[in-house]
Amino acid sequence: MTERKKTTIILFSGDYDKALAAYIIANGAAAYDHEVTIFHTFWGLNVLRKEELVPVSKNFIEKMFAKMMPRGANRLALSKMNMAGIGPQMIKGIMKKHNVQSLPSLIEMAREQDVKIVACQMSVDLLGLKEEEMLEGIEYAGVGAYLADASEGNVNLFI
Amino acid sequence: MTERKKTTIILFSGDYDKALAAYIIANGAAAYDHEVTIFHTFWGLNVLRKEELVPVSKNFIEKMFAKMMPRGANRLALSKMNMAGIGPQMIKGIMKKHNVQSLPSLIEMAREQDVKIVACQMSVDLLGLKEEEMLEGIEYAGVGAYLADASEGNVNLFI
Amino acid sequence: MTERKKTTIILFSGDYDKALAAYIIANGAAAYDHEVTIFHTFWGLNVLRKEELVPVSKNFIEKMFAKMMPRGANRLALSKMNMAGIGPQMIKGIMKKHNVQSLPSLIEMAREQDVKIVACQMSVDLLGLKEEEMLEGIEYAGVGAYLADASEGNVNLFI
Repeated sequence: MTERKKTTIILFSGDYDKALAAYIIANGAAAYDHEVTIFHTFWGLNVLRKEELVPVSKNFIEKMFAKMMPRGANRLALSKMNMAGIGPQMIKGIMKKHNVQSLPSLIEMAREQDVKIVACQMSVDLLGLKEEEMLEGIEYAGVGAYLADASEGNVNLFI
Repeated sequence: MTERKKTTIILFSGDYDKALAAYIIANGAAAYDHEVTIFHTFWGLNVLRKEELVPVSKNFIEKMFAKMMPRGANRLALSKMNMAGIGPQMIKGIMKKHNVQSLPSLIEMAREQDVKIVACQMSVDLLGLKEEEMLEGIEYAGVGAYLADASEGNVNLFI
Repeated sequence: MTERKKTTIILFSGDYDKALAAYIIANGAAAYDHEVTIFHTFWGLNVLRKEELVPVSKNFIEKMFAKMMPRGANRLALSKMNMAGIGPQMIKGIMKKHNVQSLPSLIEMAREQDVKIVACQMSVDLLGLKEEEMLEGIEYAGVGAYLADASEGNVNLFI
């Protein structure tokens, strides 16, 4: 009886290209039967926001953050060559042409492959995000849960 | 007799949010009794600069770097939404409200928990930093020392 | 008989300072007799472009990307303080003064030490790069090959 390998990814970045890399590695690892966790923290939480505007009660600063941060995987910017949003459109067009799945599809596929999708509770609080604004069916946890997974991990990445 | 787990972090970034993530993980790991090393390199060295201006002899380029780089953990910028320094002030206010410790306190706590705080000697030299400008009681080492730690590490991250 | 330790690095970034960190760690690990792989993806592929302009057939968007992205290790920008190209020149001058090898020399040294230099095939396709434009003697592979290496790795980093 061999134990399953474990892969953990901290997704700190909210850039489209980095989130893409994270979800491609996660789906690949799940396909190789790894137990996979993606721990979303800080700007990486924007990947998990619902696309639609959800009416929730927020204080002034929380409203400001909510407005300035992209709502969901499809609205993220590129880390380089973003060019006011033209870069992401170009990349998405090229991805379609090369039959690479879009980020929202990769997230869906990760969920189907039982990748554990976790939002860092402390960052959720700091950025003033509410559970109603986030994708359904994700987990909320802290650094302790991350370390429990990662200290048994074969591949641990910070993206 | 079980061996203690080991966590190593290379802190390359000098952004407030990334340094925060590094020190939260480091303190968490130390609390779970890991042996923890944070290896500060390139811009991550700015986290370890003293806040006060220390008069040291520097050549022209070293002076320029010293002036352009932030002096200490409290002066770092955010990787996103820095808004000419308003972003960090906002985040610090929110952290206080949510009882999250500030970066300087997290560094202090890491030292109390015996997290090994290392400055990459080569980067110190390249950026023209002098030991008098750096926090007391830190270690100076190179890539060999890092690899010795990391190759035994359970969790190794590059931030 | 002890097994050789393994180090894998995903180089996602195309910044001079981050590529420098990657190649210094890789060369260090190889010197300590690790089996080392650097898996270049997205902007990290620019590190592997030839300096000279290679005439290849490209579509409009591929041409645009090719033009906007730096051609080779010597033309990369800094992640901070790039100052329209003055930053990299300054860093290169300081590196020479401190006898730190340049990035192109570090890549050469990595190859002499049998560091496996891999370009992510999917990213090559997305960015429209052609094999004729890339350094000779590198490998092309996908996430499966990366995971096979990394899941046996002692030190796995995402840079």
